[in-house]
Amino acid sequence: MRLRKIKDAYIKLAANDTYFIAAPQNYKGQWSKAFGNNNPLHLEIGCGKGKFISELASLNPHINYLAIEKYDSVLLRALERVSDKELPNLRLAIIDASRLRDYFAKEEVDLIYLNFSDPWPKNHHAKRRLTSESFLNSYKDILKANGAIYQKTDNRHFFEYSLETFNNNGWILANISLDLNKDSEIFNITTEFEEKWSKLGPIYRLEARKKNG
Amino acid sequence: MRLRKIKDAYIKLAANDTYFIAAPQNYKGQWSKAFGNNNPLHLEIGCGKGKFISELASLNPHINYLAIEKYDSVLLRALERVSDKELPNLRLAIIDASRLRDYFAKEEVDLIYLNFSDPWPKNHHAKRRLTSESFLNSYKDILKANGAIYQKTDNRHFFEYSLETFNNNGWILANISLDLNKDSEIFNITTEFEEKWSKLGPIYRLEARKKNG
Repeated sequence: MRLRKIKDAYIKLAANDTYFIAAPQNYKGQWSKAFGNNNPLHLEIGCGKGKFISELASLNPHINYLAIEKYDSVLLRALERVSDKELPNLRLAIIDASRLRDYFAKEEVDLIYLNFSDPWPKNHHAKRRLTSESFLNSYKDILKANGAIYQKTDNRHFFEYSLETFNNNGWILANISLDLNKDSEIFNITTEFEEKWSKLGPIYRLEARKKNG
Repeated sequence: MRLRKIKDAYIKLAANDTYFIAAPQNYKGQWSKAFGNNNPLHLEIGCGKGKFISELASLNPHINYLAIEKYDSVLLRALERVSDKELPNLRLAIIDASRLRDYFAKEEVDLIYLNFSDPWPKNHHAKRRLTSESFLNSYKDILKANGAIYQKTDNRHFFEYSLETFNNNGWILANISLDLNKDSEIFNITTEFEEKWSKLGPIYRLEARKKNG
């Protein structure tokens, strides 16, 4: 998600040591220390303004949630949303998704959420999509055995692409929905983006599980 | 496809020895003899009234097309469509898709079309869907290395199910379209069913290729 650049965003983030993790690379292999417990670690790559992950964190106190963004101006908006809440199982960090292996040890993460990631519609940008092969390989490394990715998008071509890359890189697909709003049996926490735009067309969703061994 | 039962349908079919193959089990391992050449063999499982496969056959004279149906009343409608045409690369046969191995040798078929197959919407009928695991295993047997299945459907839940079964049974997915009518770059011959109903919602399509080795 792109937002207008906010002046001194990083300084404002760093002033909050309840939620903001200023040196995430130091937690590689020991994210349990950032939360003070050994609960499962769920990651949202590209948390936007943080509606989705803060609602999830509130619903599931026994799961640790880490929301990451590439840009400080975006993450600051997420921080502002949660700063007056008490969510001891939520942390925010600036992490570039293309360098996940610098921040997470092998098999350290239980679940990854990809919500309305940038579809990078041009073919020559396909490698930047968060479901391109090199990203999937890094997710495979940091996910536990049986770890999974939950993806949602409203972009048809990005979803078609993602189905193919997950399939062709050996992931197990489950609970695919090609019109999430009509699937009342799938529990869905919406993002800000989804609230605003999902009336225009279907929301696509999938679960991709890492194969054992 | 179900149609009202036509009286003496089988007798009418059997009277046509240009298109109708009365004893398809005799061609197992030697379908080239039914066509008099060694061209690739493409199969449509559930050809309905035959619009799709007869147009394809007309466009691609160097491919042999075999249209199969379970019920003689349906196949008779397909025969009536083509009986006054000259399509030396088309044959029709009554074959139950659950017994493909009785009619085709290992690796005898190059391509299989599944167009608007019965979605069998109830979960306890899932095994009857033409993309359930046991059907996929039989397709794997009769398809050549690199052989493929092209599937089209307007039924969302059937397509979601099919994406999962192809994926989880080791097929390679390609050229997925979640709204075929908007994908002008994919060449599409329509079926009667599609002509009639496709305005109501998206047509889904996929290609599933058999893995080598």
